[in-house]
Amino acid sequence: MARLYIALLHHPVINRRGEVIAAAVTNLDLHDIARAARTFGVRGFFVVTPLEDQRGFAQRIIDHWITGPGADHIPDRRQAMQLIRITESLAEAVAAVTTAEGQPPVTVATAARGYPQAIDYPSLRGVLAADRPHLLLLGTAWGLAPDVIAAADHVLAPVAGAGGYNHLSVRSAAAIILDRLLGQRG
Amino acid sequence: MARLYIALLHHPVINRRGEVIAAAVTNLDLHDIARAARTFGVRGFFVVTPLEDQRGFAQRIIDHWITGPGADHIPDRRQAMQLIRITESLAEAVAAVTTAEGQPPVTVATAARGYPQAIDYPSLRGVLAADRPHLLLLGTAWGLAPDVIAAADHVLAPVAGAGGYNHLSVRSAAAIILDRLLGQRG
Repeated sequence: MARLYIALLHHPVINRRGEVIAAAVTNLDLHDIARAARTFGVRGFFVVTPLEDQRGFAQRIIDHWITGPGADHIPDRRQAMQLIRITESLAEAVAAVTTAEGQPPVTVATAARGYPQAIDYPSLRGVLAADRPHLLLLGTAWGLAPDVIAAADHVLAPVAGAGGYNHLSVRSAAAIILDRLLGQRG
Repeated sequence: MARLYIALLHHPVINRRGEVIAAAVTNLDLHDIARAARTFGVRGFFVVTPLEDQRGFAQRIIDHWITGPGADHIPDRRQAMQLIRITESLAEAVAAVTTAEGQPPVTVATAARGYPQAIDYPSLRGVLAADRPHLLLLGTAWGLAPDVIAAADHVLAPVAGAGGYNHLSVRSAAAIILDRLLGQRG
């Protein structure tokens, strides 16, 4: 059984000019990625932002679906939203996984472009099944900052489509990546 | 080269009680599914709703990104949004594909639960590469109405995760389905 966690970083990420920014939390990122995480058996979904008001915003969304009116309205959404943990930094997310699993996770950055040292999907799928806990890093805005990618243990190969166009939303990319790593084939 | 089209139906779809409704158009459905469609080489993305005000809403979103301020702001989004055609009915979408391709498309319904006659992903991927144009039907809200599923030429197998939980957003499901049918493996 794979011990996979996800972290959705809102900082440090880049904008379209390549500048490092803190992006705003998007409601549907939380819903879509939590639902995909629950579907594929991900153990935890960290929403990472250093901005206190954004952490409060994310917490209010989650509370609505776990203990608020949403819990009765759509009970299956509760199961997904319960996977979310809000943290101030990636380091805090890594520490939480380490505590939960008894050992630090292997970190895997995701990026829209390829890197020479990228790990491909079958390889990562293979080690996930038997190996240490892993933490998959997803970037909002225009993606993870170079420092995050450089510091990760692995960089996952980009999702390749039919041509050179590669502008999936982070929600779509997360869904495809989880399916490739954890989905039942066929 | 696959000749695949997508239709996102807002009617007839069901609500959580199984009643047939017309669902509202969601901005991020258009963005996410258009971006995934463009990434995987889909030939056209039909947004189907019988509600005139909803067609107007969808058209304003698209115009913003094709000819409005969005076209300069994020040029790659324009390439995705240009795939969208707004139609009043599924029949109108089928007619448009027939005109564009010179023959009617094979229709493929999608559903969160399995059907005995379901086609699996490798099989559909195989016929897409060499066969007639296909039109993939996606449902908003709680999914396509039974009549739409019954009338389709095929029903695609549901996206299977790690367990029985199967509550992906239509945006996530669309991304995964396109990757399974058209993505480069590896």
